[in-house]
Amino acid sequence: MRGSSVALWCAAAVACAGAAWAEDEGIRGFAPERVEAQRTIEEMLIGSVRRDRLRSFHEGLSSEPSPAGTEADLRKIRWLSKSFGEMGLEVEEHWIDVYLARPVTGEVEIVRDGTGEVSVGLSVQEGPIEGDPYLTDEGLDIGWSAYSGSGEVVAGVVYANYGRRQDFEALREMGVDVRGKIVIARFGGNYRGYKAKFAEEHGAAGLIMYTDPKDSGYVRGLMYPDGGWATPEYIERGSVKTLDYVGDPLTPGVAATVGAEVERLDPEELALPRIPVQPIGWGAAHEILSRMEGRVVPEAWQGGLPMNYRVDGGDALRVRLKVEQDRRIMRTANVVAILPGAKHPDEWVVVGSHHDAWTHGAGDPNAGTMIVLELARMFSERVRSGQPVQRSMLFACWGAEEYGIIGSTEWVEEHAEHLGAHAVAYLNLDMAAMGPNFRASASPSLRALILEASKLVASAVDPERTVYEVWSEQSGGTPGVRVLGGGSDHVPFLMHAGIPSMAMGGGGSSGVSYHSAYDNLHWYRKVVGDDYKPAEMIARVAAVALSRLANADVPALETGAYTEVVQEQLRSLSKMAEERGLSLDPEALSGALDELRSAHTGFFASEVNDEVVMTPALIGAERAWVEGPEPVERPWYRNRFIASDRDSGYASWVLPQLRGAIESEDQTMLDEELDELRTVLERMARVLREAAAE
Amino acid sequence: MRGSSVALWCAAAVACAGAAWAEDEGIRGFAPERVEAQRTIEEMLIGSVRRDRLRSFHEGLSSEPSPAGTEADLRKIRWLSKSFGEMGLEVEEHWIDVYLARPVTGEVEIVRDGTGEVSVGLSVQEGPIEGDPYLTDEGLDIGWSAYSGSGEVVAGVVYANYGRRQDFEALREMGVDVRGKIVIARFGGNYRGYKAKFAEEHGAAGLIMYTDPKDSGYVRGLMYPDGGWATPEYIERGSVKTLDYVGDPLTPGVAATVGAEVERLDPEELALPRIPVQPIGWGAAHEILSRMEGRVVPEAWQGGLPMNYRVDGGDALRVRLKVEQDRRIMRTANVVAILPGAKHPDEWVVVGSHHDAWTHGAGDPNAGTMIVLELARMFSERVRSGQPVQRSMLFACWGAEEYGIIGSTEWVEEHAEHLGAHAVAYLNLDMAAMGPNFRASASPSLRALILEASKLVASAVDPERTVYEVWSEQSGGTPGVRVLGGGSDHVPFLMHAGIPSMAMGGGGSSGVSYHSAYDNLHWYRKVVGDDYKPAEMIARVAAVALSRLANADVPALETGAYTEVVQEQLRSLSKMAEERGLSLDPEALSGALDELRSAHTGFFASEVNDEVVMTPALIGAERAWVEGPEPVERPWYRNRFIASDRDSGYASWVLPQLRGAIESEDQTMLDEELDELRTVLERMARVLREAAAE
Repeated sequence: MRGSSVALWCAAAVACAGAAWAEDEGIRGFAPERVEAQRTIEEMLIGSVRRDRLRSFHEGLSSEPSPAGTEADLRKIRWLSKSFGEMGLEVEEHWIDVYLARPVTGEVEIVRDGTGEVSVGLSVQEGPIEGDPYLTDEGLDIGWSAYSGSGEVVAGVVYANYGRRQDFEALREMGVDVRGKIVIARFGGNYRGYKAKFAEEHGAAGLIMYTDPKDSGYVRGLMYPDGGWATPEYIERGSVKTLDYVGDPLTPGVAATVGAEVERLDPEELALPRIPVQPIGWGAAHEILSRMEGRVVPEAWQGGLPMNYRVDGGDALRVRLKVEQDRRIMRTANVVAILPGAKHPDEWVVVGSHHDAWTHGAGDPNAGTMIVLELARMFSERVRSGQPVQRSMLFACWGAEEYGIIGSTEWVEEHAEHLGAHAVAYLNLDMAAMGPNFRASASPSLRALILEASKLVASAVDPERTVYEVWSEQSGGTPGVRVLGGGSDHVPFLMHAGIPSMAMGGGGSSGVSYHSAYDNLHWYRKVVGDDYKPAEMIARVAAVALSRLANADVPALETGAYTEVVQEQLRSLSKMAEERGLSLDPEALSGALDELRSAHTGFFASEVNDEVVMTPALIGAERAWVEGPEPVERPWYRNRFIASDRDSGYASWVLPQLRGAIESEDQTMLDEELDELRTVLERMARVLREAAAE
Repeated sequence: MRGSSVALWCAAAVACAGAAWAEDEGIRGFAPERVEAQRTIEEMLIGSVRRDRLRSFHEGLSSEPSPAGTEADLRKIRWLSKSFGEMGLEVEEHWIDVYLARPVTGEVEIVRDGTGEVSVGLSVQEGPIEGDPYLTDEGLDIGWSAYSGSGEVVAGVVYANYGRRQDFEALREMGVDVRGKIVIARFGGNYRGYKAKFAEEHGAAGLIMYTDPKDSGYVRGLMYPDGGWATPEYIERGSVKTLDYVGDPLTPGVAATVGAEVERLDPEELALPRIPVQPIGWGAAHEILSRMEGRVVPEAWQGGLPMNYRVDGGDALRVRLKVEQDRRIMRTANVVAILPGAKHPDEWVVVGSHHDAWTHGAGDPNAGTMIVLELARMFSERVRSGQPVQRSMLFACWGAEEYGIIGSTEWVEEHAEHLGAHAVAYLNLDMAAMGPNFRASASPSLRALILEASKLVASAVDPERTVYEVWSEQSGGTPGVRVLGGGSDHVPFLMHAGIPSMAMGGGGSSGVSYHSAYDNLHWYRKVVGDDYKPAEMIARVAAVALSRLANADVPALETGAYTEVVQEQLRSLSKMAEERGLSLDPEALSGALDELRSAHTGFFASEVNDEVVMTPALIGAERAWVEGPEPVERPWYRNRFIASDRDSGYASWVLPQLRGAIESEDQTMLDEELDELRTVLERMARVLREAAAE
């Protein structure tokens, strides 16, 4: 194929200096003679998404509440294996023994207020609603926060806004002592685990969390079932684990695969919450908050309940909080279906979403998981009808994500070596179809691929326009593919293994069912809709992107796209460093970045087009981010390009080691990490240069 | 002064083709030799604003509730005359006999709900709050809507969102019949008079209005007295008159001056509301709304009360509404203090704010009226100390503005001839100092003046930066001086008499006291602040702008600035016309606009600098907007450049005759009015050309 390299590399929409190829004459990464066939495949894939199948997968997945480690979880795993098997796919059940929790008791009671001794018991579970058959399911747990400490406490209360680091600092500045108090904080602003962590660090005796109507409820719009927003009884379940790694709490960095000999940490020594933590609805929270008699809150802390919020409850108010949970090792599994690649079976393109759910999970995760199943069906049917995929495709349903990204992490740890050498990319689809407005996050090297794929699919907002066109209009210009945050199964792939990753999904529906008993098919069809058009749209964009990665002569990983992001982040970190009296030259990596840019261009302009060398080179360049020495802080997060942030958990830090050094005000570490980054960039450039020279 | 014309005209910040004068070398409209003296005057004015005087004026003005026509109103008028007199100013009390109203009874009661017969009486007056001495003032009226019909009705209820035209249309589309019902609507979205007008037009039997907590209340922030937002008892008073003219309902176009022989309309024939209209607080509204049992509202209609809002009350719910008011001719006065001009005493620069208030009026109007008094004090002291003003300055406190811009309108009608020939500009300061963030609205010809003045004064947000700098930052670029809306005393000056007008003020405080019993000094000092820095800032900017208008050789009215606004509006109206199947060529006036632009440039570039010709020419050019034939619709609104809009009352229409023709889908009128506009523009150009040729 010598001589075709220009066509191979320069035919994409991403401008390529000197290339004479128009956008519609090629597809990035495909030799010219294969473009037409790929176009046909993409059209057939787009046409083959079936909304009735999505609907049926959605029903199968959301039939009962299935938290990890329960009997229902096992039934779900069997159903997944059977479903994938019926598509003719190889299925791997990857069984793991991991440290989970189950709720036993949750009690909240007001025992004294301004009127004297009282006994006002507060509900910790959503009640029935006429017309919603799922709410009376006996499998529904009470509202609970997994990994809460167990215990009972009677104490006064302090309102801590969102319970973020800055909220607790503000309380201290106001002279409010939370020691020995029950902190009440609203959901939002950070990952709930940090609310518990900060409350405990500040000496609180317990934590109550609730969803404020300003964040979801009547302030936002109609409440369920008239609309989709939080009722007075809406309770957000979820994990409160915050460790320096994700995955099984007892086996950081090592797979907790059943049958494997694994050394486990002592559960007693884990930094899991010791105080009782309990979520409630805003109706119950109103009972407590409206009895508070202390000083009023700063303006920004005012929520949407019909009262002035106060920071301290006053002497009269006493609340009893009792939580009991059973933390222990439980068994669950990832279910991974494999479609072997015809030409490069060792090279993996992975797409996944988790299968465990706090309740029925029609939104979280099954609004995404149904798409993983539909993609598996579509691709396997294409293969059976004679259109093989060139690389292996893996369709994964992860276990125990809700407890802290456990199943996917154990699987990544189990397959670390193979993934490191051969994984091309990971696509995460957790909760993907929650509305018609398309959005995406990705590693820089995958951004162009998503934009290209979005140009081929009709929007769920307006079938006359493409996803890209509507997305552009909603973005007020070129759509931004964002940086990936924390909080789902891409974390081990991206932040631990260094595999370029992406997530896509649709939003924009009026309501939230997140982690509540309302997260069922009745809510989903009322609020997101009954037509499955958002799911169809996401499935189509995902199918095009996956097909290009799986079939390209060389998968289009735009290594050069890192340079801009790194340079921009250096500038912003440099300002942050300066504010703290540290020094970080924003141009310190200019040489290395120029060299990477030039290596990237040289690589693409060279006549090297033997994909046996080129694909491994691109994969190798990506892995440079995880190949340095283990980071000093949070060594599990090996990727020097990106990590979950340290204080909120849902956001992420770009160049996390620099950011960490700045936050710790450590100039030495900052200098060392800057050198380390230079090494990474040089290694990336060298890998590309060497491949080009072969 | 021949030869100095270039300096006179081109030294301002507004770029002037070919001029070599830098911004800091001159002031638009001043001959070079007078610039230094004017700079000194401006500096002295800026330095002479006294916050203790503002505070003291504020206290004098806000000492008691003074609705127009009451005994307290007469005491206020006497106090104003005395205060102006003590400054050594000539004072004119302009007494008028105008058609007002007084509250007698307001009753709202729930008489039946889902539980059967009940009697839940709802409050129509704010109760006392500890620490606020003003709330127990015996002079406070109940909550009422002036000019409501009188009567009693027992009926079911319908919720109509903001009671806008489109809300009633939506109700009709939903199949909700409001005939015979009591409509309940929230404040906001339009002038309250239109809620009453639309409700009556649709056959409602009565109207209840309330302030929803989503618009002001706990949803926004802390409630009074902890913060500034609406308590459950907050009631917005105000007029519900909507006629095709402002001013005295009985004497459109003619001054109702005491002693003058005036023909009056028959009050029975006025289009004032016939149905009872009553405002209440959200606490009372919640009692009604939470008992409604009909279908839920569209998402956007959901307010901030802790419930799902419903459009119809259902069969069980019945509310009794009784309103009695006394409508009759009452006497009040405008108080106008005059500082005679040394060189052009006939030419008037007018600044004003009203003096009547529904309650104590610390915000509305006295946050502005105190500045009118302070400006009068400052300028009269400057004159006494030997710095005369060249044109006459009039400091006006208008009566009965709250009932429908009555006092100022009667005064403008009384002085129509002189104002038409000699008024240079009007500055309105109603409610001007409500916060530190500077904002302004103005006729196009006065925009540059405000921007220039804002560059000389320190911001109340940050004393290290100018008003202009902070305003720019808050606007994300060049600050926008907006188009004037309706709703205050600039309306007769601008929209009836064609006098270029402006309004300026500061906002950004956390709370609203508008027309409620909380609009007193205690609320103002708690929420806006006790330091009077916003008032100081506004007084300074106003002083510079007024001083330039009063002292310039030729006042800097930028006639040419109309061309851009007209062209832009034509484009947008052209689209609107097209949507309705009408035709309006957006370039139809290009020739006339080019000619005006060219006349403007020629006028300024000419050596004509005799202000005896030039000032009248600029005034004459402005008056071209009101000199055509009376508009067919709403003939009182003679200004063909701008009028209050027809459906909300607070906004305005630019090129209102075109807009009206489009809304009426009348191509003939549209063509005629386009010709009329061409005539206006040609007349403006001709006036400037002729003056230049002299």
